[in-house]
Amino acid sequence: IQSKLPGVNTTIFTVMSKLATEYNAINLSQGFPDYACDPKLTELVTKAMKDGFNQYAPMPGLPALRETIAQKVENLYQTKYNPDTEITVTAGGTQAIFTALAAIINPGDEVIIFEPAYDCYAPTVKLFGGLVKSYALAPPNYSIDWEMVKKLFTVNTRMIILNSPHNPTGSILSKDDIEALIKLTHNTDILILSDEVYEHLIYDEQKHQSVMLYPELKERSFVVASFGKLLHTTGWKLGYCLAPAKLTAEFRKVHQFNVFSVNSPMQHAIANYINQPDNYTGIAQFFQQKRDYFRSLLAESRFKLLPCNGSYFQCASYSNISDEKDTDFSIRLIKEFGVATIPVSAFYQRATDHKIIRFCFAKENLTLSMAAEKLKNV
Amino acid sequence: IQSKLPGVNTTIFTVMSKLATEYNAINLSQGFPDYACDPKLTELVTKAMKDGFNQYAPMPGLPALRETIAQKVENLYQTKYNPDTEITVTAGGTQAIFTALAAIINPGDEVIIFEPAYDCYAPTVKLFGGLVKSYALAPPNYSIDWEMVKKLFTVNTRMIILNSPHNPTGSILSKDDIEALIKLTHNTDILILSDEVYEHLIYDEQKHQSVMLYPELKERSFVVASFGKLLHTTGWKLGYCLAPAKLTAEFRKVHQFNVFSVNSPMQHAIANYINQPDNYTGIAQFFQQKRDYFRSLLAESRFKLLPCNGSYFQCASYSNISDEKDTDFSIRLIKEFGVATIPVSAFYQRATDHKIIRFCFAKENLTLSMAAEKLKNV
Ligand SMILES: CSCCC(=O)C(=O)O
Ligand SMILES: CSCCC(=O)C(=O)O
Repeated sequence: IQSKLPGVNTTIFTVMSKLATEYNAINLSQGFPDYACDPKLTELVTKAMKDGFNQYAPMPGLPALRETIAQKVENLYQTKYNPDTEITVTAGGTQAIFTALAAIINPGDEVIIFEPAYDCYAPTVKLFGGLVKSYALAPPNYSIDWEMVKKLFTVNTRMIILNSPHNPTGSILSKDDIEALIKLTHNTDILILSDEVYEHLIYDEQKHQSVMLYPELKERSFVVASFGKLLHTTGWKLGYCLAPAKLTAEFRKVHQFNVFSVNSPMQHAIANYINQPDNYTGIAQFFQQKRDYFRSLLAESRFKLLPCNGSYFQCASYSNISDEKDTDFSIRLIKEFGVATIPVSAFYQRATDHKIIRFCFAKENLTLSMAAEKLKNV
Repeated sequence: IQSKLPGVNTTIFTVMSKLATEYNAINLSQGFPDYACDPKLTELVTKAMKDGFNQYAPMPGLPALRETIAQKVENLYQTKYNPDTEITVTAGGTQAIFTALAAIINPGDEVIIFEPAYDCYAPTVKLFGGLVKSYALAPPNYSIDWEMVKKLFTVNTRMIILNSPHNPTGSILSKDDIEALIKLTHNTDILILSDEVYEHLIYDEQKHQSVMLYPELKERSFVVASFGKLLHTTGWKLGYCLAPAKLTAEFRKVHQFNVFSVNSPMQHAIANYINQPDNYTGIAQFFQQKRDYFRSLLAESRFKLLPCNGSYFQCASYSNISDEKDTDFSIRLIKEFGVATIPVSAFYQRATDHKIIRFCFAKENLTLSMAAEKLKNV
């Protein structure tokens, strides 16, 4: 059998988490919390199941949840999305990304991606016959030269994928970035897929530059969000996609045949949980403290920390420690030092050798300090 | 924006369930139970959440669940699937079907589908550039003439989609059907997508003719199964896909970028529930009683019942009641008589006028008798 995705292997997250388990290493690789989520939230799931909400949710998502999402989005970004026609609940952010690309990309369409890039973007574009035009950004700031982006435009440019706060680098788009993007795409019909799953995880009083804040971008954007990141429940696989009615209509045509609908008791629980903003407004501060704590611990190591403005990822250079490639180095970190990380080269399509690895700091402080102890030996 | 699925509307299930709610009709349209699932099962979800299983499950599914599935399949069909390389847990049967087609279908590939066909097959094939070759079966038996199937074969035939027990008709494939299929596809490399989500719902001591029972078919089949149907929890969106290692490898390449992984606490719960076969072995008898009860009630109506050998659907002809098309008739049934059903023409690509509607009998006996009272007035 001939593969449609010949170059694709098991995701780096699966590989590293598996190695972490095998070697009993502290797992700072795959991005997920190691502490409990709010028991109030799980009690709401139990209640929803008891109340009998165990059958198909409506295809676009539970109405109450979509209304709560609309309210939350309006509070945060002062913009409206119609729950009936512009909000779709998905089985996680990844399914939203996959479905948006499935709905839009035709063979020959070009999609601009900034690297390092979350690892699902490129293969999904290719699965639908699209061509990936990637723009490789460089450490330490991974900043975008928009004149370079312009050079990637052709008549076939169909979409640009944004991701801010950025996984894996923790960088964020600035107002200047967004304004450059608006200028560049003005009077084109280039669509935006804006992966904003870390929208709440932004630090030092900075403001998340969501595409939703800019009407000209909003009207041609799919925005992807994640409850897993917001509620510390990555394993529940709940997220959503916001898009203008015309785009949402196409999104839902695929969504209904992909997963049809999404976990019903958990949608009930989340609707009843996030309608109280108190339940999540402290999240940036919560993660900022973890970031600061982890950075202070690693300050005593030989790793050189890159800036981290958002997300729950901290990148670091080991160039003064070793000459190894980052995949080799991170495997050795697991085997010899008992800490699992992600080699950032895994997020580039072409071979790169920046000697940078990514740590996830969505962990108990004790986990972080134990990991730091080990990392100081490196 | 140009649609990739221009002919596609909202699924008939969404349309009918919505109308049912609007007109406060008894909903025998979309297939889902209206009674509670086993509280033991929901307690296991609560326990899993308390035990902290709220983060990403492994991409292919929880190992314990895959092992339990392997055991269940071996008990039922005396055949082995390797949990590591041949079993993938999915966000419901629909996601398994979508993912298998995504992994296999290239532009120009032809896929043979028997109509009436579950409504996701054809648009999903088309989304990946495939061509649907449909073979329309006729009431009352919807039986297959395999010589006719042979005529559909071309050099581009890539896959045949089977669905037994069959939604919407409740028919089942016989041993003769399977043997004809084996003969027909012998020495070809035509793949099978076998949608067996109703595998347990088979009546009158008949045996489910799974492709898994036939090594020659098994080795080129994706088999799709559903926990929603088995455990009366359609809203949990949990199912799985069985396929030989080579096919599973391709399946997982797409799966990991589509949903990445599936609801973790519910996988734990189901693993701990179905490892006791007592928890589900009574299901065929349970639904057979419902079928018999519903048929006995409708015997007093003017509807003519078609055979029902499996699934939780009962089809009926209204040709001696009305000349209307089935969509019109079923909308009138909702508005004037307060019962929602599914018009079977919705499962054909070309216009058909067999005057047949589908009832779902996965309902409380009280619901069935109340619906029957209304249907007797028709
Ligand atoms: C979908 S598993 C990977 C989790 C994640 O987003 C990351 O580690 O980058
Ligand atoms: C996915 S909603 C439809 C449920 C179902 O399988 C049916 O009613 O046929």
